[in-house]
Amino acid sequence: MKKKLVKSITSRTFDFGKWYTDVCVKGELIAYSDVKGFIIYLPDGYFLWEQIQKFFNKELQKTNHQNVYFPLLFTENLFKKEKKHIQGFQPETAFVTFAGDKNLSEKLILRPTSEVLFSQHYEKTITSYRDLPKLYNQWCNVIRWEKSTRPFLRGKEFLWQEGHTAHANAQEAMSETLSIIKLYQKLGKELLAIPFVIGKKTELEKFAGAIETYSIESLMPDGQSLQSGTSHFLGTKFSEAFNIKFQDLDNKIKFVYQTSWGISTRLLGALVMVHGDDEGLVFPPYIAPLQIIIIPLQPKDANVIKFSNEIFEVLKNKYRVKLDVQNKNTGWKFSQYEMKGIPLRIEVGKHGLEKDEITVFTRYNFLKQQFKKDDLLTKIPFLFKNIHLMMYQKALKYLNEHQYKANNYEEFKILLKKGGYVAISISGTNAELKIKKETGATARIILEQELITDNCPITNEKAIYTALFSRAY
Amino acid sequence: MKKKLVKSITSRTFDFGKWYTDVCVKGELIAYSDVKGFIIYLPDGYFLWEQIQKFFNKELQKTNHQNVYFPLLFTENLFKKEKKHIQGFQPETAFVTFAGDKNLSEKLILRPTSEVLFSQHYEKTITSYRDLPKLYNQWCNVIRWEKSTRPFLRGKEFLWQEGHTAHANAQEAMSETLSIIKLYQKLGKELLAIPFVIGKKTELEKFAGAIETYSIESLMPDGQSLQSGTSHFLGTKFSEAFNIKFQDLDNKIKFVYQTSWGISTRLLGALVMVHGDDEGLVFPPYIAPLQIIIIPLQPKDANVIKFSNEIFEVLKNKYRVKLDVQNKNTGWKFSQYEMKGIPLRIEVGKHGLEKDEITVFTRYNFLKQQFKKDDLLTKIPFLFKNIHLMMYQKALKYLNEHQYKANNYEEFKILLKKGGYVAISISGTNAELKIKKETGATARIILEQELITDNCPITNEKAIYTALFSRAY
Repeated sequence: MKKKLVKSITSRTFDFGKWYTDVCVKGELIAYSDVKGFIIYLPDGYFLWEQIQKFFNKELQKTNHQNVYFPLLFTENLFKKEKKHIQGFQPETAFVTFAGDKNLSEKLILRPTSEVLFSQHYEKTITSYRDLPKLYNQWCNVIRWEKSTRPFLRGKEFLWQEGHTAHANAQEAMSETLSIIKLYQKLGKELLAIPFVIGKKTELEKFAGAIETYSIESLMPDGQSLQSGTSHFLGTKFSEAFNIKFQDLDNKIKFVYQTSWGISTRLLGALVMVHGDDEGLVFPPYIAPLQIIIIPLQPKDANVIKFSNEIFEVLKNKYRVKLDVQNKNTGWKFSQYEMKGIPLRIEVGKHGLEKDEITVFTRYNFLKQQFKKDDLLTKIPFLFKNIHLMMYQKALKYLNEHQYKANNYEEFKILLKKGGYVAISISGTNAELKIKKETGATARIILEQELITDNCPITNEKAIYTALFSRAY
Repeated sequence: MKKKLVKSITSRTFDFGKWYTDVCVKGELIAYSDVKGFIIYLPDGYFLWEQIQKFFNKELQKTNHQNVYFPLLFTENLFKKEKKHIQGFQPETAFVTFAGDKNLSEKLILRPTSEVLFSQHYEKTITSYRDLPKLYNQWCNVIRWEKSTRPFLRGKEFLWQEGHTAHANAQEAMSETLSIIKLYQKLGKELLAIPFVIGKKTELEKFAGAIETYSIESLMPDGQSLQSGTSHFLGTKFSEAFNIKFQDLDNKIKFVYQTSWGISTRLLGALVMVHGDDEGLVFPPYIAPLQIIIIPLQPKDANVIKFSNEIFEVLKNKYRVKLDVQNKNTGWKFSQYEMKGIPLRIEVGKHGLEKDEITVFTRYNFLKQQFKKDDLLTKIPFLFKNIHLMMYQKALKYLNEHQYKANNYEEFKILLKKGGYVAISISGTNAELKIKKETGATARIILEQELITDNCPITNEKAIYTALFSRAY
């Protein structure tokens, strides 16, 4: 208990929500701004986002996507052109009404998302099939006036990428929609060590203005689902509203098919929650801001310091590594770096000097092993790979163990209380609304599998699809 | 004349301003948004900015700076804390007054610059000399409600980096201020092929809230100066206003010394103007979005296409290269890629097939030379290095040839009409204001050199410093 007090991190089991904000703040990922709902991304927090950017930019480049930047502000009129879209976003929009020492004749919207701006530009620049596909992406800030906010998960401002593409036909646009959601899944698996469930949203839950929305959902340790990224097939909804036409190979004039898709700093919230523990943050090695911390156990011993320095020199060009020679209590140091989630700790002690040996501590499972100094460079890559894999497997196991099937509504409610996802076959929106009202759970995705029951247990009508329900962030 | 009409680029000598917007738009660097003063950064335009980010991030990493992200919106009250600062920015600020379906109780400012936010955070987090220096930087958008706007040069929204640092004493902060301005100079020389004059701003021209402002200024072909980046020594102005104190090694409580510094997408305007010509854009090779275009002269000849493909395969992993096999008029292709400023054009013709020879055209000087295919990979690095150097030298020559010294006010006015910088020794702000009013020229920087005249030709008072004047963007 004393250790907990020193770090002042609330226990996860005692209060998961408090634990989460504790590790975000004490782990120095974020700080609060004085304006409610806005956060400061501190160096470690922003570094995580930069790693996501690097990973995803590389994938975008391979698939011929291009980065662009569109304006922050646009007119309300433009926003009104696609009706479902504006209905979905209106309550959350923020407006500039006064600028340059006077009231604006038309108030301007701070982008909550940029479909309308890209559509307006596409209308002006696409004329022929030769102009297609357009595969644009931008990294930017967006503003959504959310009522209740939490670091990374929901904020009045957040950072994201938004892709906006235009295609000559529906097949191409659908294939883009799906290949992007798979890229998001890849990012989760290879960089964040987070498994996602992946699928189509129901009519009720899909994006305002989309024909189909595909989503990646991750399961948090409190049993709630976190929507972690979405990819929308927009069909011709925006091209018809914005009159984006082109002359096709067959000389006919047609509307383009569009997609849009995004992941945001919300992923950092998933990263913190999925892997963290009562000691604090736990980062998978490839994304960790600091990958290795070297701690001399006898910081006053010149030989130990010399040996520590040698190890630092060996590692510094390959890894994000720090050597802490401060003359502070070793236990306190351990505790601090454990809280910060650094994947590897190398302990250098005088007992290992003759044998050229050091102790390597892995944060995620608290295990120690002895390494020869000369083996470090060959062993660390395998160690990192293994840590990453084990962290992913652990999260996958948790995800798999928290997926249930309900044959009736009673069973559904009981299973829901266990936390996690419950599959149930339902008749449609009415059933969904009733479940939401009575249990607080929402349909996260539609499962592509056989129906569990022929009839919907909620409405007694014929079941149409099986959806995965859970409470959600 | 016909060629000009085809491309519809205005001649530089005929109308430099029109030429500039022509190449920005027809060269597909930007497109206009429907809201006046806002631009869209198209793939090539945004790519240039990403190259600047990569170059500068690498330098920042070497010097232990850290990237962060602070909120877009903050309260007017916070902005009011440093009086000179708010006076400087107030006329250009934009406000959010309505959000989430209601009027805000306190209107929020869209950041025109973020000194106040970083200062507020530093006040909360700096307590000891151990917390210093803080070396934070962020890449973001800023909003300044400018009345007259031009692509890249002046917009209601622009992209930039803003560094904000805090130090234990004045020397360290001053050394940071100067080392950053030298980094900007390095970026100009090594990436943009642009030489800067570099120096301190006068009292009249310095940043609102700074003790000293250092500036890099580049000279445009129309004889006007473009302020291309600034680095401010803030002293304790903000730390006193925001109460940012720390306990120093000597146990005394002291105010921190701060700096701030920034470069923006304005640099892209300099890049376009300094190197462009009547055929369009001209990019130095290291920053060019596309570095090499391969054009088969007989696109219907299978052997020519085969040879072109072989060359493409040789180059594609080393350079940003494209092969254009479209069956279009070769002259039209040449003209298009010249307009886009691509540094190298490789012409593949059937006459070169037996000898394995191709023609390499360098955009900046319109020269052609014959290369053997096998020599390409060894010769291109030298060619790029040479092109970059020559483009830099050309700009430097122009800069040097347009710097004058004035011994009296008449001479000053005559020299000013030639375009470029005129040095004059003056008594201070009164002289500066008179020059500005009567000639439109402003003091760009203070020269660290002996006075030209003992007395100020404007006021007849004793001259205090020599300043470089010019008309400016």
